[in-house]
Amino acid sequence: MINYKILLLNGPNLNLLGNRESNIYGNITLEKVLNKLNKKAIKLKTKIKHIQSNAEYILINEIHQSKKYDYIIINPGAFTHTSIALRDALLAIKTPFIEVHISNIFAREKFRSHSWLSDISNGIISGLGIEGYYCALYTIIKRLNNKKKKL
Amino acid sequence: MINYKILLLNGPNLNLLGNRESNIYGNITLEKVLNKLNKKAIKLKTKIKHIQSNAEYILINEIHQSKKYDYIIINPGAFTHTSIALRDALLAIKTPFIEVHISNIFAREKFRSHSWLSDISNGIISGLGIEGYYCALYTIIKRLNNKKKKL
Amino acid sequence: MINYKILLLNGPNLNLLGNRESNIYGNITLEKVLNKLNKKAIKLKTKIKHIQSNAEYILINEIHQSKKYDYIIINPGAFTHTSIALRDALLAIKTPFIEVHISNIFAREKFRSHSWLSDISNGIISGLGIEGYYCALYTIIKRLNNKKKKL
Amino acid sequence: MINYKILLLNGPNLNLLGNRESNIYGNITLEKVLNKLNKKAIKLKTKIKHIQSNAEYILINEIHQSKKYDYIIINPGAFTHTSIALRDALLAIKTPFIEVHISNIFAREKFRSHSWLSDISNGIISGLGIEGYYCALYTIIKRLNNKKKKL
Amino acid sequence: MINYKILLLNGPNLNLLGNRESNIYGNITLEKVLNKLNKKAIKLKTKIKHIQSNAEYILINEIHQSKKYDYIIINPGAFTHTSIALRDALLAIKTPFIEVHISNIFAREKFRSHSWLSDISNGIISGLGIEGYYCALYTIIKRLNNKKKKL
Amino acid sequence: MINYKILLLNGPNLNLLGNRESNIYGNITLEKVLNKLNKKAIKLKTKIKHIQSNAEYILINEIHQSKKYDYIIINPGAFTHTSIALRDALLAIKTPFIEVHISNIFAREKFRSHSWLSDISNGIISGLGIEGYYCALYTIIKRLNNKKKKL
Amino acid sequence: MINYKILLLNGPNLNLLGNRESNIYGNITLEKVLNKLNKKAIKLKTKIKHIQSNAEYILINEIHQSKKYDYIIINPGAFTHTSIALRDALLAIKTPFIEVHISNIFAREKFRSHSWLSDISNGIISGLGIEGYYCALYTIIKRLNNKKKKL
Amino acid sequence: MINYKILLLNGPNLNLLGNRESNIYGNITLEKVLNKLNKKAIKLKTKIKHIQSNAEYILINEIHQSKKYDYIIINPGAFTHTSIALRDALLAIKTPFIEVHISNIFAREKFRSHSWLSDISNGIISGLGIEGYYCALYTIIKRLNNKKKKL
Amino acid sequence: MINYKILLLNGPNLNLLGNRESNIYGNITLEKVLNKLNKKAIKLKTKIKHIQSNAEYILINEIHQSKKYDYIIINPGAFTHTSIALRDALLAIKTPFIEVHISNIFAREKFRSHSWLSDISNGIISGLGIEGYYCALYTIIKRLNNKKKKL
Amino acid sequence: MINYKILLLNGPNLNLLGNRESNIYGNITLEKVLNKLNKKAIKLKTKIKHIQSNAEYILINEIHQSKKYDYIIINPGAFTHTSIALRDALLAIKTPFIEVHISNIFAREKFRSHSWLSDISNGIISGLGIEGYYCALYTIIKRLNNKKKKL
Amino acid sequence: MINYKILLLNGPNLNLLGNRESNIYGNITLEKVLNKLNKKAIKLKTKIKHIQSNAEYILINEIHQSKKYDYIIINPGAFTHTSIALRDALLAIKTPFIEVHISNIFAREKFRSHSWLSDISNGIISGLGIEGYYCALYTIIKRLNNKKKKL
Amino acid sequence: MINYKILLLNGPNLNLLGNRESNIYGNITLEKVLNKLNKKAIKLKTKIKHIQSNAEYILINEIHQSKKYDYIIINPGAFTHTSIALRDALLAIKTPFIEVHISNIFAREKFRSHSWLSDISNGIISGLGIEGYYCALYTIIKRLNNKKKKL
Repeated sequence: MINYKILLLNGPNLNLLGNRESNIYGNITLEKVLNKLNKKAIKLKTKIKHIQSNAEYILINEIHQSKKYDYIIINPGAFTHTSIALRDALLAIKTPFIEVHISNIFAREKFRSHSWLSDISNGIISGLGIEGYYCALYTIIKRLNNKKKKL
Repeated sequence: MINYKILLLNGPNLNLLGNRESNIYGNITLEKVLNKLNKKAIKLKTKIKHIQSNAEYILINEIHQSKKYDYIIINPGAFTHTSIALRDALLAIKTPFIEVHISNIFAREKFRSHSWLSDISNGIISGLGIEGYYCALYTIIKRLNNKKKKL
Repeated sequence: MINYKILLLNGPNLNLLGNRESNIYGNITLEKVLNKLNKKAIKLKTKIKHIQSNAEYILINEIHQSKKYDYIIINPGAFTHTSIALRDALLAIKTPFIEVHISNIFAREKFRSHSWLSDISNGIISGLGIEGYYCALYTIIKRLNNKKKKL
Repeated sequence: MINYKILLLNGPNLNLLGNRESNIYGNITLEKVLNKLNKKAIKLKTKIKHIQSNAEYILINEIHQSKKYDYIIINPGAFTHTSIALRDALLAIKTPFIEVHISNIFAREKFRSHSWLSDISNGIISGLGIEGYYCALYTIIKRLNNKKKKL
Repeated sequence: MINYKILLLNGPNLNLLGNRESNIYGNITLEKVLNKLNKKAIKLKTKIKHIQSNAEYILINEIHQSKKYDYIIINPGAFTHTSIALRDALLAIKTPFIEVHISNIFAREKFRSHSWLSDISNGIISGLGIEGYYCALYTIIKRLNNKKKKL
Repeated sequence: MINYKILLLNGPNLNLLGNRESNIYGNITLEKVLNKLNKKAIKLKTKIKHIQSNAEYILINEIHQSKKYDYIIINPGAFTHTSIALRDALLAIKTPFIEVHISNIFAREKFRSHSWLSDISNGIISGLGIEGYYCALYTIIKRLNNKKKKL
Repeated sequence: MINYKILLLNGPNLNLLGNRESNIYGNITLEKVLNKLNKKAIKLKTKIKHIQSNAEYILINEIHQSKKYDYIIINPGAFTHTSIALRDALLAIKTPFIEVHISNIFAREKFRSHSWLSDISNGIISGLGIEGYYCALYTIIKRLNNKKKKL
Repeated sequence: MINYKILLLNGPNLNLLGNRESNIYGNITLEKVLNKLNKKAIKLKTKIKHIQSNAEYILINEIHQSKKYDYIIINPGAFTHTSIALRDALLAIKTPFIEVHISNIFAREKFRSHSWLSDISNGIISGLGIEGYYCALYTIIKRLNNKKKKL
Repeated sequence: MINYKILLLNGPNLNLLGNRESNIYGNITLEKVLNKLNKKAIKLKTKIKHIQSNAEYILINEIHQSKKYDYIIINPGAFTHTSIALRDALLAIKTPFIEVHISNIFAREKFRSHSWLSDISNGIISGLGIEGYYCALYTIIKRLNNKKKKL
Repeated sequence: MINYKILLLNGPNLNLLGNRESNIYGNITLEKVLNKLNKKAIKLKTKIKHIQSNAEYILINEIHQSKKYDYIIINPGAFTHTSIALRDALLAIKTPFIEVHISNIFAREKFRSHSWLSDISNGIISGLGIEGYYCALYTIIKRLNNKKKKL
Repeated sequence: MINYKILLLNGPNLNLLGNRESNIYGNITLEKVLNKLNKKAIKLKTKIKHIQSNAEYILINEIHQSKKYDYIIINPGAFTHTSIALRDALLAIKTPFIEVHISNIFAREKFRSHSWLSDISNGIISGLGIEGYYCALYTIIKRLNNKKKKL
Repeated sequence: MINYKILLLNGPNLNLLGNRESNIYGNITLEKVLNKLNKKAIKLKTKIKHIQSNAEYILINEIHQSKKYDYIIINPGAFTHTSIALRDALLAIKTPFIEVHISNIFAREKFRSHSWLSDISNGIISGLGIEGYYCALYTIIKRLNNKKKKL
């Protein structure tokens, strides 16, 4: 039985996870992260739909169709710092979302400190490695359960 | 009989018009706006070709092929604030254009006050709602007629 | 029969229209613009009161007495960039207004890009030449008619 | 018997006091404020001359003729943020002055935080409502009495 | 009989009042200021509790326990320009407060022009010397009386 | 049996949690947060030492003595934005730490976007509410277990 | 016989010359300066029309009617730093002009270093005292004579 | 026999080369540039794979698959100034690259002076026209030959 | 016999000297530095009172009581960059002081380049290691001796 | 008979006067300017010593030996914007000086608007062409005569 | 037979090439670079005159006498970032020039990103090592040949 | 017997020491400073070579030949704030150096707060007067002795 549906979006270059700058991003691949995350989700009666794309417009299109999801987890990659279109898509669709960064964006180049999404997000996690995804998942389930209780 | 051809470009998230942040953008859909605009255009013996895309490259490609149009009306959405490539495409192709924003970009977040297009545009309209498109159409016809008279 | 009354305000140096920097402002005089605009207004059952002044305080005084008007069209000239007093007058009196600039202020010196009025305006038109005034008029009538319908 | 003479200057838009943005400025009119202030002044054997103007040059002219006053109280309205000419007039005439703002200029738009007068003023009061005028009066009498004692 | 209770907070270095930079702060000691202020307060059926501290945390702790007071008068000294913790304490506790500076902070070094408190204060007085405290007291009593009347 | 020891530091004003600006911080008290967190910790064979202080120096002294802890969780409150001394203390002592903010500091006043700690932290969590503490705990245990495995 | 006509404009507060801040502006009155200047002008077969005003709009109106003059000498006073309307008036009317400042504006407050006129002027003189006016006159005659010779 | 393989990437609007703003970019088409470049490359026993795209994601995808190439030559067009995703792709894949601009980006609008790539590039050439591509090729062969010698 | 008394103040984290970031601060402890310094002082007939504290208010209190000292040597640690209250305490008390930094604050993070004390200090020494303290001592004795000679 | 001695310094590239960018600097050579200037000087019983150099140190050395001159006229060329050493030389030697620029430095590139000399100069003349030198000479003689009279 | 003459200028510290920071500049000496470059030049029927100087004025003097050269290659060393006088010399003399930097100035300290020459250069090469000189030579010959062909 | 050799460099205007702005620099001449310093050096078995120059290139040349020295003491005068060439010379030659300023550069004009040398120096001394040179000497000998001991 599935209680909740979550959309997981990963932005540009995250397809290279585990094969790229491992001193910054670690050496576990995106595929393995997804496997682990799905296992946790299933225990929590939650289904995760995953999209990774290097194209901004594909992420925007996915967000436009995200009304059927209860929450979004998004790691926008470099679009964090440049895409107002992504911000506008998330503003347009009211689905709540948590922003996740694997590396600590505040400990890197200065231009990575600014995110076009974080002031409209429902939480931001930076530098927890892939645990960031699990924390986002955990918090979302907690919030959805609380909301359900109140009804 | 058609005197003029106009290319109307709408950028990212404008496909959601009428279904998104209606306090800012109103609740009339893009389809209805186009219907109304086309009716006006026909009375003015003008044909409007419309393209909406969430992908920057599609807008660029359209601009590259815009030599057959007399004028462009463009509402670049969030690309207003981020896309120098769009600016360069418009600089490369000499077709004149008017920039339209449905909401008043100067009354919103500060980052929306800067446009990469307005200093090379042939006019900018902001915050007139969908009337902005009609005003652009009206002004363009006026200009094209004047030009014709001078010949 | 007159349905609506509109106050048209033109700021400093606009008395020279048509005689000044014609490459930027065109060569039609303010008088001719007003004649044309009045004709259009009459067809729309609207009366336009026009004031041009080089003195900030005269514009402010006019705004203070603008409660009898349904809408204001204002081309603040250079006061656009320097007058907070004008802004405060418009904030104090709740009459809605559209800001018009004949030339494209975004395509000129950088200091002309900032307006003290545009974030509190009900729309801004820049660089449409004298068509800007007609567009403002057209949009205002449209809005006032819409408002009337809803009553 | 009159011991002291004070010039009270109110800048642009303050003629609308009580009729304008009452959430910010309260709903007591300028006339009533002056009546109350005059009563207090008379008890303190002080005469207050009041000028309100929306014109910068009238305020400057008044300041030029202020040598017969012992002190100036000035609420420069929007000129606070834009008029160096007012500053220069106050620098030229050595009459000391206190700057008063009815609303708290530091709790509003950022551009209202800068005053061209406050670094040359003999005190600034902001956000005490109309009590600000009384406080200015009270402090001035105190200072003038102290000065007299020292003679 | 006591109608109102006011908490008066003085920040770092104000214990030296009268013994320090007398060209800026005058030469009356803090003790004398308090005596005078208390006398005025008693006439107004008001009790003033006074705390001076060079330690930020002591001021914060006092603010946390300020619910029993009707109003706070605070001269934050140098913490004006550096303490967000003080700001947060005042934001947390809803007791209204007036910010007082003996010297005119706008006529000194540029870094003294910014206050972390003034945009959340219920009024700011700067450069009236020790009269600033009396003006704060006077305004507060006025406001509390007005509030009482409305009940 | 206890495997790990964690120091939990809460900065100024966090003693008011649950009683302060509940729209921002929620209405669960610090005491309850600690109870819940301790229960989770015990299950994970971890002991949490908690210190809340409004005094910067007490937090610094605690950090100086933190060598006996495996990890620090710190919510620096307003010191986030002002305390380089806290940064230096954490730099001096090499104990790794995660920075937690209950509210989303990026969605509030602009000055809250800068943290003196985040570029030297081992992760930052902002806006997850009190779940932020649990996520920090969870991630730390994960990391400590991984480290142990590698030995 | 009169060969040339020059318009001399003095801005706000210059009516106080000689009676104001004599350490900065000297103690010769405006009247005396004009007498001396006129004598020199007559020898050079030149007529000087002088206007001093504290009102921006009066200066603008004079500039609008300056087509009958061969050159303008302008000391804009504080409007130097604030009036784009004055700049626009001078841009509109093509009469060349020299900008004169009695005091050295570069040796005073930083905000006096920026002039809205100097980049469109035909020369700027700052800090030569009243000799600045004579130097402007001398240079203008030289230029007009040279121009005449070339015809 | 082929010794080296080079990937040549051209960004948005470069498909218009020779047909666009010829005062800036010259009037030789991209096709001709490639023909000439290929001839030179063949003499140097080098194969050039060329991709031009107006889409950022296509350039990113190509870079991701660039491991089989010895070097990249990239003219990022307008993405130079806006695409951190492109930067991240080049950082992820360690293939060295030289950045080429046909026009001198430092002699144009100020915003063209900043490149997101140049600080991670192995050299930058700007304003040498299409000779820039040949210089990049020449330098790369030199470097690859040197590297080979050292082995 | 003691000729001079000097107050030596060390700010936050300096208690860890020798045990902290030895690549920056060296590995000699504060205790040893003090021993050596005292020996030198005794030879110069000078007594040094030493205070190290992580609390700003303790340093301020010490400065308030520093009138009995001839000179202060202060290493303000991180308070260098954040404490205006410390600056004000030193301004209030006229005792001259030399500012010492063990590491070269100009060769570290940019935010360490600004000191709130150096523009009011009687000298600043940065990056000479613990020799900085000896140099300060030596210079002070030299100055005090010179002063004595002049009497 | 010689009453006054003036040192005339011309900085880098001024040796090319008349042969360089004549649209900016005119086409009269430095030699001719000097001839004319000397003739005027002789009539005014003044001797001018002239030095032009492209080397900063030569100008500095000349200033160091300028005590025998009554006044300096300096056109520092590009050193205007870069040489603090020149400023320091002029500060060290108290000889008064007037700064002259042939072209209007405020009407050119923005970086030419800042001068390291003008805030310590006794006057600045910009954009009067070579008349600027004559104006400087005239003003200096006037000042020296006035000074003599007062003795 | 010599067709073209090129002036090669090397600025301060380049005499140390090969002996200085070899990780940045490589370890080939200036002498060897010149030898190689001359050999290439001779094959291209071109003569290169070389000047290296640590003195700005010597470089300026050489540029003043550069009319006999067809092109300049300049590596201005640190003067790149500080010498407007060099810029002015190159502006005065119309000889075209290419700016060369051995290291990649965009990959080093931020202050090295700005060049006073690049916006007036005929091309800039940065970070190609000593190949940069050869590329400049190659491009220049190409351009001079093209120019000759057009005649 | 000489153990160490130190190069002492003094930049522009320091030849005037004792004869220039004595309120800032004191009235002891450079010659006397050198005599005293040499005496101290001899006691410490150290030889000091001294160069003062107003020419940047002479200082650079000296630094290039400084390999025979154990340490450099440099007071760069105004070059502190403008000469990147000097910085590069010191970077090229690895001889360690201490930067000395007689006056406190942080207590003067803001532009004197930035030094192009201090972040690469081995220590900076500012405002200790001529004692600064002795302190530098003392620290250098200490360091050289320590280094010798370790061998």
